[in-house]
Amino acid sequence: MKKLLLTGFAAFLDNPINPTEKIVEELDGEVIDSYKIVARKLPVDFMMAGKQLIAYMEELELEAVIALGLAAGRSAITPERIAINCNDGLKDNGGYQPHGEKIVTGGADGYFSTLPLHKIIDALHEEKLPAHISNTAGTYVCNNVMYHALYFVQKHALSIPVGFIHLPASHELALKKQLPSWSQSDLTRAVKTIISTLSR
Amino acid sequence: MKKLLLTGFAAFLDNPINPTEKIVEELDGEVIDSYKIVARKLPVDFMMAGKQLIAYMEELELEAVIALGLAAGRSAITPERIAINCNDGLKDNGGYQPHGEKIVTGGADGYFSTLPLHKIIDALHEEKLPAHISNTAGTYVCNNVMYHALYFVQKHALSIPVGFIHLPASHELALKKQLPSWSQSDLTRAVKTIISTLSR
Amino acid sequence: MKKLLLTGFAAFLDNPINPTEKIVEELDGEVIDSYKIVARKLPVDFMMAGKQLIAYMEELELEAVIALGLAAGRSAITPERIAINCNDGLKDNGGYQPHGEKIVTGGADGYFSTLPLHKIIDALHEEKLPAHISNTAGTYVCNNVMYHALYFVQKHALSIPVGFIHLPASHELALKKQLPSWSQSDLTRAVKTIISTLSR
Amino acid sequence: MKKLLLTGFAAFLDNPINPTEKIVEELDGEVIDSYKIVARKLPVDFMMAGKQLIAYMEELELEAVIALGLAAGRSAITPERIAINCNDGLKDNGGYQPHGEKIVTGGADGYFSTLPLHKIIDALHEEKLPAHISNTAGTYVCNNVMYHALYFVQKHALSIPVGFIHLPASHELALKKQLPSWSQSDLTRAVKTIISTLSR
Repeated sequence: MKKLLLTGFAAFLDNPINPTEKIVEELDGEVIDSYKIVARKLPVDFMMAGKQLIAYMEELELEAVIALGLAAGRSAITPERIAINCNDGLKDNGGYQPHGEKIVTGGADGYFSTLPLHKIIDALHEEKLPAHISNTAGTYVCNNVMYHALYFVQKHALSIPVGFIHLPASHELALKKQLPSWSQSDLTRAVKTIISTLSR
Repeated sequence: MKKLLLTGFAAFLDNPINPTEKIVEELDGEVIDSYKIVARKLPVDFMMAGKQLIAYMEELELEAVIALGLAAGRSAITPERIAINCNDGLKDNGGYQPHGEKIVTGGADGYFSTLPLHKIIDALHEEKLPAHISNTAGTYVCNNVMYHALYFVQKHALSIPVGFIHLPASHELALKKQLPSWSQSDLTRAVKTIISTLSR
Repeated sequence: MKKLLLTGFAAFLDNPINPTEKIVEELDGEVIDSYKIVARKLPVDFMMAGKQLIAYMEELELEAVIALGLAAGRSAITPERIAINCNDGLKDNGGYQPHGEKIVTGGADGYFSTLPLHKIIDALHEEKLPAHISNTAGTYVCNNVMYHALYFVQKHALSIPVGFIHLPASHELALKKQLPSWSQSDLTRAVKTIISTLSR
Repeated sequence: MKKLLLTGFAAFLDNPINPTEKIVEELDGEVIDSYKIVARKLPVDFMMAGKQLIAYMEELELEAVIALGLAAGRSAITPERIAINCNDGLKDNGGYQPHGEKIVTGGADGYFSTLPLHKIIDALHEEKLPAHISNTAGTYVCNNVMYHALYFVQKHALSIPVGFIHLPASHELALKKQLPSWSQSDLTRAVKTIISTLSR
């Protein structure tokens, strides 16, 4: 059976809860259509997150990679269109603060996601789950992870679906700070729907 | 058994779907703790909505009134603190456009909700549903209905719980225009939780 | 010459700059059409702000009162329609935290502003300054001050224009946290325009 | 004297006023430090805007290109970090609607701006004008124009400063629809400040 790497993150910055962490715990080992899910949590750390992802990609003979992240403030599921070669933003969980430097020296300025974005949006809408393509994954660790994954498939000329999906806050997080939010079960259902599209 | 009037609205302005309509259809006739639910849909019409609500209040020997409305753009359940003596805003479904006139000549400038607001917020939070008290129900038909109901209990010196709850958009509505949204089942669960607090 | 009391506030909560403070400093002693401006700064303190305002109102033989406050996040000038009998919110600068208690025992639930709201909006629009009526001054110290002033004129049956105007952040404040903002000179111009309408 | 091409757009979609149009009219022919400004208006048209820009770039022996656009809803000046190889969004003024197709077949997925972004942000902040780098110019005509300009300098191995700056709405536009806005004079001042940084 084909293996799909699904990644999430732990809590970071002023977000005490990260809904992607629970999704990863819940879906690890599950089979969704033609994929077996290998789900892993990445550290919110510029120096380590990408390396760890690459290690999984080298080790696991994957046929698909979907990285998940929290986009606090967004109100819909947003598959990202592009990752860009730039680290910028506030301090990560390791205390490192980037200042606009490149992620990979000599890497392209940007790499498009290789996920079937329009198919994903359509599938989510059929499930009555709001979704649209996002044109920026930011310049924080989410973008960093997405860039690493796409650089890797580019470098090794792999043609597998690889990309990043930003999720809204969960209701549990929104109890702690006012944010648009979905129930955790809606978020998990969205991720399952997205994974299903890869088998169609 | 005590009767609770629960009201919702139809679609209005540029919102092609109103999640309160479905809740009213679903909960009519249900029993929630010590209340039997009498659920009715009100027209989005300044001239008719209040009158109709008052007719129900006079006819039904109610012991509680909860009116529901859609607050497109809000991301949490928001029980309203106060209704104010003012009609203002865009045209209603009947084509009438108000311009800041009073709802009831000689009525007070504002009336506080008689629902147990803090208890409601606490109960929703226990259910992991984001909620906070809102300080304005606006000046559209929602506020109009809330004002009519509170003026009625004031005039007749009734001491029953009466108030208005604004809900976020449903996912179904958010498919049509970008808005913070909840699943319809989360919205219904929130309304049931609110009704339950009246029996505690 | 008629006297108009204009009040502003100091910095509060997580807003390190309050644009109303500068406006008050700049306009104190100025004459705008038929009014001499007496401009004062109020403390962001539930226990003291209202008292101090009332002291000014008793002492100064005023013929108009306009209180100003910062509404961080709003993008237009918003004259407030109503003050409500409720203190609620985070700690004030004196360390006091309210929990929904009444401002004046036996006071009405709400009092409408006695400023000519529509005239003010029209005058601002003529000056090409975005503005609309707001239906809530919140439940923090701004609303508290507005409620005190309106309760005072009600109690003493004065028929003078009294109300509250919320302003957007200034560009200077928006340098410190991302917020919609206007230049300080646009804000001052808006306040002068508002005062002018009282002489028309 | 060195020539700088400054471009703006006409009104588009549901924005009846475009503040960049006025800036272009006002600054055409001006000298700002070491640059003479050649200011031109581009059509909001996927098929024509890029071509027209390239025609100017080929004809005018430029030493810098700054394209301006309206970002309705943003509240600060936002120099764009990257243009991406994608046309997507609603119909343009010519009636054409894109669906995610590439702008230039064989072009890179993205090209970074060659403007001194951090210097620009610092200069704007010194002038007390809120600004931050944006990570997406969207996929509408603004991004299209930015992509064309950067593809051109890349192809011809030019090393001149080229980029795109998104501006908030003007107060005049915000009179027609509720949006964060600046006065037109603040917007013009921001653009002059940005141009100045190229001579430092």
